[in-house]
Amino acid sequence: MTALSQRASLPSTPTWPSNAWYVAATSEELTTQPLGRTICGEPMVFFRGQAGQVAAVEDFCPHRGAPLSLGFVREGQLVCGYHGLTVGCDGRAAGMPGQRTEALPAARAFPVVERNGFIWVWPGDAAQADIAKLPPMPWAENPGWAYGGGLYHIACDYRLMVDNLMDLTHETYVHATSIGQREIDEAPVNTSLEGQQVVTRRDMPGVKAPPFWRMALKGAGLDEDAVVDRWQICRFSLPSQVMIEVGVALAGRGGYDAPLAVKASSIVVDFITPETPTSHWYFWGMARAFAVDDAALTDTIREGQGKIFSEDLAVLERQQANLSRRPDRRLLTLNIDAGGTHARRLIDRMIAQEVG
Amino acid sequence: MTALSQRASLPSTPTWPSNAWYVAATSEELTTQPLGRTICGEPMVFFRGQAGQVAAVEDFCPHRGAPLSLGFVREGQLVCGYHGLTVGCDGRAAGMPGQRTEALPAARAFPVVERNGFIWVWPGDAAQADIAKLPPMPWAENPGWAYGGGLYHIACDYRLMVDNLMDLTHETYVHATSIGQREIDEAPVNTSLEGQQVVTRRDMPGVKAPPFWRMALKGAGLDEDAVVDRWQICRFSLPSQVMIEVGVALAGRGGYDAPLAVKASSIVVDFITPETPTSHWYFWGMARAFAVDDAALTDTIREGQGKIFSEDLAVLERQQANLSRRPDRRLLTLNIDAGGTHARRLIDRMIAQEVG
Amino acid sequence: MTALSQRASLPSTPTWPSNAWYVAATSEELTTQPLGRTICGEPMVFFRGQAGQVAAVEDFCPHRGAPLSLGFVREGQLVCGYHGLTVGCDGRAAGMPGQRTEALPAARAFPVVERNGFIWVWPGDAAQADIAKLPPMPWAENPGWAYGGGLYHIACDYRLMVDNLMDLTHETYVHATSIGQREIDEAPVNTSLEGQQVVTRRDMPGVKAPPFWRMALKGAGLDEDAVVDRWQICRFSLPSQVMIEVGVALAGRGGYDAPLAVKASSIVVDFITPETPTSHWYFWGMARAFAVDDAALTDTIREGQGKIFSEDLAVLERQQANLSRRPDRRLLTLNIDAGGTHARRLIDRMIAQEVG
Repeated sequence: MTALSQRASLPSTPTWPSNAWYVAATSEELTTQPLGRTICGEPMVFFRGQAGQVAAVEDFCPHRGAPLSLGFVREGQLVCGYHGLTVGCDGRAAGMPGQRTEALPAARAFPVVERNGFIWVWPGDAAQADIAKLPPMPWAENPGWAYGGGLYHIACDYRLMVDNLMDLTHETYVHATSIGQREIDEAPVNTSLEGQQVVTRRDMPGVKAPPFWRMALKGAGLDEDAVVDRWQICRFSLPSQVMIEVGVALAGRGGYDAPLAVKASSIVVDFITPETPTSHWYFWGMARAFAVDDAALTDTIREGQGKIFSEDLAVLERQQANLSRRPDRRLLTLNIDAGGTHARRLIDRMIAQEVG
Repeated sequence: MTALSQRASLPSTPTWPSNAWYVAATSEELTTQPLGRTICGEPMVFFRGQAGQVAAVEDFCPHRGAPLSLGFVREGQLVCGYHGLTVGCDGRAAGMPGQRTEALPAARAFPVVERNGFIWVWPGDAAQADIAKLPPMPWAENPGWAYGGGLYHIACDYRLMVDNLMDLTHETYVHATSIGQREIDEAPVNTSLEGQQVVTRRDMPGVKAPPFWRMALKGAGLDEDAVVDRWQICRFSLPSQVMIEVGVALAGRGGYDAPLAVKASSIVVDFITPETPTSHWYFWGMARAFAVDDAALTDTIREGQGKIFSEDLAVLERQQANLSRRPDRRLLTLNIDAGGTHARRLIDRMIAQEVG
Repeated sequence: MTALSQRASLPSTPTWPSNAWYVAATSEELTTQPLGRTICGEPMVFFRGQAGQVAAVEDFCPHRGAPLSLGFVREGQLVCGYHGLTVGCDGRAAGMPGQRTEALPAARAFPVVERNGFIWVWPGDAAQADIAKLPPMPWAENPGWAYGGGLYHIACDYRLMVDNLMDLTHETYVHATSIGQREIDEAPVNTSLEGQQVVTRRDMPGVKAPPFWRMALKGAGLDEDAVVDRWQICRFSLPSQVMIEVGVALAGRGGYDAPLAVKASSIVVDFITPETPTSHWYFWGMARAFAVDDAALTDTIREGQGKIFSEDLAVLERQQANLSRRPDRRLLTLNIDAGGTHARRLIDRMIAQEVG
């Protein structure tokens, strides 16, 4: 039960895999201005080339070290705001007033791709970057789904967020007024490995819906007061993505497998991108398969979800502060932590393979 | 005169004794919510058990390291706000949803006791904690006295506050508009050891009262314009408590020993609790033996004293910043510093005994 | 072209010469209160003696380490605001209540002199301080010139400011709306050594004046729409002073050498004083030889110049942050960087001579 233990300390080896796609930004964040953001410890600047394609180079002008993100984009090239050194999408110096630039060293460029409203970057070895390794996002490519989401910057190790999302018993305590309910604690949790995915599942048959799900039932045109079967299926994939199938169906109609017409079901989308060993970018959202044309409902859900995840943010940052103060302490891994424990093992194994 | 010198540096050995009672909070601070506070370098959480008794455990959930002070109290037990691990007043795991907790490690509990409106904690070896070692507080247990006070968090080594309180010549400079007067500087100071107490004393016969004492004379029903005999008797006790008998009596009536009816006398109460090597909790107050039923006077005194001690705070934090920048510098110990010097010797001796 | 490279790291040897005069404050900053300011890593307090003369001593009371700048000046001596130790202009203890002070150690005093509205301090070996080494300031001693200026605290290595001022191509990018214009980039830059001075010069004949210079032309009673010859002559002198002759003359009238009546010319005055390895005090101003009695114009220029230099501040602080994050990176020295490169060589040579 408490056989395993983990170190809470910040290791000197990397705490994240580098050879992987991470979400760096949403498409709508990147307009005509360059965007500076640190991903996996690398300060990067993102901008759009002449054709609108995304580029990512290190946020450090090869000339005098000014951040290139202070500059501007001109005809698809990034101009340093200090002395005008211009780099192309490949990071190479493309011009500078009164200066030949052929021999200048290039700024490091990172593989980057835009897909389904997200900008994905590969912070590690560019030679290994492969678009085929992008995760499947069926909910984003199917008109039968609607999506809304947001971004939080959270001052904690990204793995604490993985732990958080792979064990939803915390909903009862952290989110008592929205999605928490006593029955979550009482339902047995089932953890399994499905290939390279870790899956934790809880089913709560015959319960009353908590406030967030009452709202969703109403949005789906169902009775918010009905007794429902509720489910949570959390799927972790490398490097640090958690997709959570959640929903409620009118009781006795099949639960997770109930027909669309009698349930409100959705996928909590979590792309978790390390910034530093003790901070990360949290791209959260919800994809739903009901009332997909109801834009007002999308806004309502986004607002509710944003409030819920801000509660996680508050707890996680305090947890990190406590762990940083006590790097010697070992944490417990109880039954409910099995999902996070297995996810961390996959992460550790991938890091170990990278550092050889 | 300047024969002694002291190191201003922050040592690597402890700067405080651990096996002692320290004030952690006032009784009124601890209501139905848990209270997180670091005492002598130990993050602690204080809460009240079922019968209202005080408990103190480390502020670190044994499960995943979240601060327990983020949680809540339920039926006299402390529930972690993250996943619901519940600990009792003894720090032992008392329950958790879906989890047997008998084998879980306990959170460290600290000896704690409530006495005379203060919550006292023993941060060191629990086996040595002894209620008999609590300091006497006669002014708190005698209806002939009234008390009011407050709490400041001050970003300096607690010993700089001890120095400050054991040499009141600073009143002339730091508190020029309230309790300072030139005669303090001019009066000879007498320092003595009385058992385990360091005592510094100044008498200023035949002076005019400064503004704070004019207010006190008036509060005591005496002539604020009268010529008075003024006294200051500072008593340091281990680990870091300074009680200062201060007062004014109508001139020639016996000074410190004058009858109650012709004097306004009180005790400045200072409980000084280390937080970190460069910060402390300062519980200050004033106990008085005159006009004890005048609650408005208590408020007036608290307000005046709070303003005065905020002046100390400003100087002490700047002093600490200067000392931290120059850890190599040695300070002088002049005549006026004898009280602080002797107090630090007692502290150093106690620490040396503890660390063996 | 890119043959040279420089370390961006913060060295452990000093980054500034100590045996030199630096501007510590303007005369108007130092009134009847003491002024605390760190110069070349030395916390100092400046005050005026009985005759109004300037004194500078370390900002650390020899008694208990409180900053002397918290105190006050009484009859030309500095009184510590904590216990009243008084020091004279030479740093020696001049008195203390109830205490003989002859044997007390002195606070270190620094050579200091007031000249032309600036307070100059010599942070190094006092024996080498020589007033003859103050820089000439002809514009300050000639009624044919007017002066206005200001002070910025900038969180970057003072040498980044030297680089900035010795290469004005950045005006096109950083100051696009005031003094920048494309022709700066296009004009060849000429760098030369004139004794112990580094000089970079650009001439831009037959251009339209950018907004700041239109304002200056108008202030000088000339046609702001006229075609002009523009010039920039930057002169670096040790330890870290840059005087920049700038101006515009009606086109074809001799440019820099044109008669006063057909030009608006001025000197940008830059006294750059290290505070810490990554911060400095930037005393900036403009001396002009036209419309010298127009106080409103002085204000207008000061305001415009202050806005321009705040743009430099923003870029330089971000550059410093980037360099601090990447101390291993080497920077390029392109054609346009020749002025800064030569200035840094003079600085490095002077430091090397000092540290032996």
